Amino acid sequence: MQTPQKIAVIGSGLVGTLLAIYLKKMGHTVHVFDRSPDIRTVEFSGRSINLVMSNRGWKSLEDIGIDHEIRKIGIPVDKRAIHLQDGKLNYQFYGKDGEAIFSLSRGVLNRKMIDLAEAVGVEFKFEHKIWDVTLADATLHIGESERGEWTELKYDKVFGADGAFSRIRHRMQRQSLFDYSQEFMKIGYKELHIPANADGTHKIDKNSLHIWPRGQFMLMALPNLDGSFTCTLFMPFEGENSFNALQEEDKLVDFFAKYFPDTKEVIPDLVHDFFKNPTSYLVMMKCFPWTHEDNIALIGDAAHAIVPFYGQGMNVGFEDISVLVEMINKYGDDWELIFKSYEKSRKPNADAIAELSMRNFIEMSTKTADEKFLLQKKIEKWFSDKHPEKWLPLYSRVTFSTQPYSEALAIGDFQNKIMEEVMTTIPDIENKWNSLEVEEKIISLLSSKVH
Amino acid sequence: MQTPQKIAVIGSGLVGTLLAIYLKKMGHTVHVFDRSPDIRTVEFSGRSINLVMSNRGWKSLEDIGIDHEIRKIGIPVDKRAIHLQDGKLNYQFYGKDGEAIFSLSRGVLNRKMIDLAEAVGVEFKFEHKIWDVTLADATLHIGESERGEWTELKYDKVFGADGAFSRIRHRMQRQSLFDYSQEFMKIGYKELHIPANADGTHKIDKNSLHIWPRGQFMLMALPNLDGSFTCTLFMPFEGENSFNALQEEDKLVDFFAKYFPDTKEVIPDLVHDFFKNPTSYLVMMKCFPWTHEDNIALIGDAAHAIVPFYGQGMNVGFEDISVLVEMINKYGDDWELIFKSYEKSRKPNADAIAELSMRNFIEMSTKTADEKFLLQKKIEKWFSDKHPEKWLPLYSRVTFSTQPYSEALAIGDFQNKIMEEVMTTIPDIENKWNSLEVEEKIISLLSSKVH
Repeated sequence: MQTPQKIAVIGSGLVGTLLAIYLKKMGHTVHVFDRSPDIRTVEFSGRSINLVMSNRGWKSLEDIGIDHEIRKIGIPVDKRAIHLQDGKLNYQFYGKDGEAIFSLSRGVLNRKMIDLAEAVGVEFKFEHKIWDVTLADATLHIGESERGEWTELKYDKVFGADGAFSRIRHRMQRQSLFDYSQEFMKIGYKELHIPANADGTHKIDKNSLHIWPRGQFMLMALPNLDGSFTCTLFMPFEGENSFNALQEEDKLVDFFAKYFPDTKEVIPDLVHDFFKNPTSYLVMMKCFPWTHEDNIALIGDAAHAIVPFYGQGMNVGFEDISVLVEMINKYGDDWELIFKSYEKSRKPNADAIAELSMRNFIEMSTKTADEKFLLQKKIEKWFSDKHPEKWLPLYSRVTFSTQPYSEALAIGDFQNKIMEEVMTTIPDIENKWNSLEVEEKIISLLSSKVH
Repeated sequence: MQTPQKIAVIGSGLVGTLLAIYLKKMGHTVHVFDRSPDIRTVEFSGRSINLVMSNRGWKSLEDIGIDHEIRKIGIPVDKRAIHLQDGKLNYQFYGKDGEAIFSLSRGVLNRKMIDLAEAVGVEFKFEHKIWDVTLADATLHIGESERGEWTELKYDKVFGADGAFSRIRHRMQRQSLFDYSQEFMKIGYKELHIPANADGTHKIDKNSLHIWPRGQFMLMALPNLDGSFTCTLFMPFEGENSFNALQEEDKLVDFFAKYFPDTKEVIPDLVHDFFKNPTSYLVMMKCFPWTHEDNIALIGDAAHAIVPFYGQGMNVGFEDISVLVEMINKYGDDWELIFKSYEKSRKPNADAIAELSMRNFIEMSTKTADEKFLLQKKIEKWFSDKHPEKWLPLYSRVTFSTQPYSEALAIGDFQNKIMEEVMTTIPDIENKWNSLEVEEKIISLLSSKVH
């Protein structure tokens, strides 16, 4: 049991709110600050990609006993539905029977979690803008504007859960020996919408993550509870097929007719939504250290903003909380040791999922349209079903296990080398994919290769 | 001839001052702002590594006709003097006969250049702290403190020459699509001092850059005009041989006696200087873009802070100016095109010298103590002397030419592959290093390898 502390969590997003629930249940006084109004009182901006929850996220919710509440608002998704340009539809299952990720609306989930946090006694302070923090004594500087009057509020601990553009990190960044990088992708995204049928059912298979892979760009869709889908178009800002090239209505309509012909029926408000909704940026942010002495810590996107292509953004943030709580249980009142152990454990894993997420854009946008790639994944799945103790595919390690991301990345690279050899050295692999020869080859490579 | 502009240069360091001289001579009104007092009126902090000027730096001074003034305050250095731990002293010449870099004191050089700038009509505003800039209309925000009263000053153009922690860049950093990274080295540095002899002569060879290479750490010394040397100890912050491990006087004395025995005579104030002088950080900073529309541009360390191990920090900054001026001469009043062309030309070269400078720590601290490495460099020099049209060593490309850094890096990597093959495949290379066999091998590799 820890000595009760007065704790400020900056940011009422998913990670900030879940962290607050944990800390409050441990007996601390917890105030959550957010510069925005209460998300429960405003219409949701619709600027965000839908979320997917997988094992790491669920574990953090189970440990605190709120997973059942959240499962009610999600839709299980057990496969990719891959829409090829010629109209062909392929399915690729994510895991074994019953394994699924859950599609959730960020707004719905966030509102629910704020309710749950308030129910345990967390105090929310919305429309409070934190402009700065004094690191030495965990004092927050709050005011209407950056150059206006500020008031000071002192805490024992401050957690920066204030996202990719964190003000808490902004202050840490100005310290010596603070490593930091932000990199904007050349690809942006725009949200589109597939409405529900009149009877509230889904227009396309609701238990799939739908992808239209077109190489440099792609469209995807995730199901919502109300029968609709949230679609996201990922595309370069500049170039032949780009947001910059689609500034007129007829060009947009031609572009969708050419590349996404089967969406004509299901995205009725294409033109309106495309020109109304903003084109959003994707940024990858890394930094270190994540903590300052025994009083300040960054968590979630404030410590590691990643691209969304592995569906792990919220999961890595929730796993940060699991590891922080593990260190709290281990080290009690030694907050400096808690913070040092937390950042040391998490940093290599945050870097690994950042790398995996970048790579997954290529997998989603290009490789899922490649028969060879789908065959390779089929062989992996077949071998894994036969020898579950010898082979768990990378996607399953990341999504359906809680193995550290850095280990998953290393083993995934090793497995990939083996599969490349299988795919290139066994002739007529298309017809022999589930043969004894392939099985023996993989087994022999597994034992011969230095991992 | 450009339409005269009202231009603010932020930072009265070397790059800011030289840029101001160029802009003033072009007919613009130029104000240079600096948060510090006039360096001519204060004692120099002694916290900075001595500078070396090489061809790129000289070219920018020659083009504006002030190179002769500067040559008077520098000392030519034509070789490395490599002090091995066993007392042996090796020399490694940098280039061909007469080729030398120039050792300069940052303080002396900076004072001289401010004099030269004032002489042509540049106006300096010292002790003016710029806290922010409005990018849209190039307005500076100036005040005593970050949270105090500010006054506004509007310019047509603002150049951020305000170093690695640039406030101008700080504002640009908060724009979308601005890529940024800062990385602190695990190695810090501390300045030490070799005084002159009583008669004003140098205690060790004055035309050498002295290195004591010891692997993870090294000592170096550069000559000053007054007979003294500025020494710099580069060493990890943590670990067995580190600043952290040298916190007591007796440990320091033992450490120097063990690793740098021949410095006992020449660094009389070791203990005093070591504990008085600060331990400084090294940071590598990269960003992009460097300019905002047609009114704001970063230059020098504000755009690309590099580590000092290639002696190119000032040279790359001065070359920024040469390229900017080239674009000004080409595009006249189209400042947006000037800025876009400038950053496009410079960015890959800034990245290349950043990479080369990182690598050169290993070369200086480790490889210069390796006989094989010195032999390889001797072979390169011998071959280059025989076939100057076929081979210019990397160091010479970087230091004694104005070939773009990115080309120098690419060709250097190609040459290194050839030399690795020569060193590993020709038996008894120690005795055959200047044989026909080696010569023919290099010539054949040069033509066979795909570059």
